[in-house]
Amino acid sequence: MPQGITELIGFGAAILTTTAYIPQFLKVWKSRSARDISRRMYIMLCTGVLLWLVYGLLLDSLPIILANGVTLVLTLAILFLKVRHG
Amino acid sequence: MPQGITELIGFGAAILTTTAYIPQFLKVWKSRSARDISRRMYIMLCTGVLLWLVYGLLLDSLPIILANGVTLVLTLAILFLKVRHG
Repeated sequence: MPQGITELIGFGAAILTTTAYIPQFLKVWKSRSARDISRRMYIMLCTGVLLWLVYGLLLDSLPIILANGVTLVLTLAILFLKVRHG
Repeated sequence: MPQGITELIGFGAAILTTTAYIPQFLKVWKSRSARDISRRMYIMLCTGVLLWLVYGLLLDSLPIILANGVTLVLTLAILFLKVRHG
């Protein structure tokens, strides 16, 4: 597989797994309902993504820092709405 | 930062962002309700995680393959329950 295609697949993966949380945030934001959302999932996810961010900073890896910085903001926002609307 | 601690942070990050979906799966499985779950989020997430899996296979990276293989099973299971229970 040419290197360019492999990198393209990696970028596509990173963009999708980062932006996937936007529709979930918007859904809970509009409906003001988060009953079916697991608080424990978002606590674990936020903690894990924070650790990825620290890992990226320690390795000085801009792709890891960027992807996980954006994901942390989005997952923290969903966790905030979960705590607020229950 | 010693290399060992950096690796430990990376492993902790990988374990948390992989297993985080277990409590969400169990919650929807037990309640049979997924109204507040965003179908679009899980379609994007499953597609992105599948691309990470392909990326890991192309790079022959066992950590990427393992983490995303497990995550794909869990996120597909949540998407299945979302489609089933709405």
